Amino acid sequence: MVWIVEEHEQVYCNERGITVSRQVVRLPNGDVIPDYFQIALPDFVTIVAVTDQRDVLVIRQYKHGVGRVALTLPGGGIERGEEPLAAAERELLEETGYASEAWTPLSHFVVSGNQHIATSHMFFADNCRQVAEANSGDLEEMEIVHMGREEAVEKTCAGAFPIISHTTALSLAVLRKLI
Amino acid sequence: MVWIVEEHEQVYCNERGITVSRQVVRLPNGDVIPDYFQIALPDFVTIVAVTDQRDVLVIRQYKHGVGRVALTLPGGGIERGEEPLAAAERELLEETGYASEAWTPLSHFVVSGNQHIATSHMFFADNCRQVAEANSGDLEEMEIVHMGREEAVEKTCAGAFPIISHTTALSLAVLRKLI
Repeated sequence: MVWIVEEHEQVYCNERGITVSRQVVRLPNGDVIPDYFQIALPDFVTIVAVTDQRDVLVIRQYKHGVGRVALTLPGGGIERGEEPLAAAERELLEETGYASEAWTPLSHFVVSGNQHIATSHMFFADNCRQVAEANSGDLEEMEIVHMGREEAVEKTCAGAFPIISHTTALSLAVLRKLI
Repeated sequence: MVWIVEEHEQVYCNERGITVSRQVVRLPNGDVIPDYFQIALPDFVTIVAVTDQRDVLVIRQYKHGVGRVALTLPGGGIERGEEPLAAAERELLEETGYASEAWTPLSHFVVSGNQHIATSHMFFADNCRQVAEANSGDLEEMEIVHMGREEAVEKTCAGAFPIISHTTALSLAVLRKLI
């Protein structure tokens, strides 16, 4: 049932780790597709973090991919050689100043069923406590919001977190009764 | 709070509608970033479709972005000039042969908070009935699975739908008590 990749040629790359590749693929029925494209971005993590006061740590910030100030979750790109959980711990600390000793993997997903793009790893961090000041080094100005469970669930259902991985992570945390 | 796009240059495009653009952006603090990249793919729809027997219409198929046979939902790219709902009706009919007269928009999301990539539109289609044979014209061989509600919820929570938009759509349908 799998497709055989007969050729793989990188046709675009840049210094931000974005690549586009053209593949020649052979289908199970013998047909050959000469131009099936794959896109690669760095894999990334998204974190549903709950404080010892049972609030969800939400970040309100401008996101250029959304084009406006948006409700988001902590998260970011996995560095070369870094394990997803280590990236999640690092991003939570950098972006919020909080740390957790109770991490649960929620799941991981591909961003696109056709072009792949990246793997999105999701974690739940329970009983988070502030251990430092936030110091993300990111380009965005961030406002940390302590959001009560009820409001977080309501806003998730209403689609108020506009980045897909954030809604997915929150939804899974709610469905698994973690928040 | 928004970033100002001072320059926008398309640096890659291909015949499948994939483009990469380099932007020069000015941040609120006056800093200028000379190489912030945006990726564009066609926007797409994902459909949680429930039959008049209360089963969820799931498609088991090889997906090249996943690299294996996977549980997926009906869906696909929005054509030029097409409304998202019309695309959802068309994709459901093409991929499954089913139609619905009870559509509910679930929400829409950006695929990436940084590079945007595409908007993912999600719909719930209730009381679906088979009106034709499936005839997707897609490259993948598809097996339609009628999945009971309980199994669909359990598999969603377990991360068994590996494409992120499919898990998001299913999660939202469960949280809103639509399935």
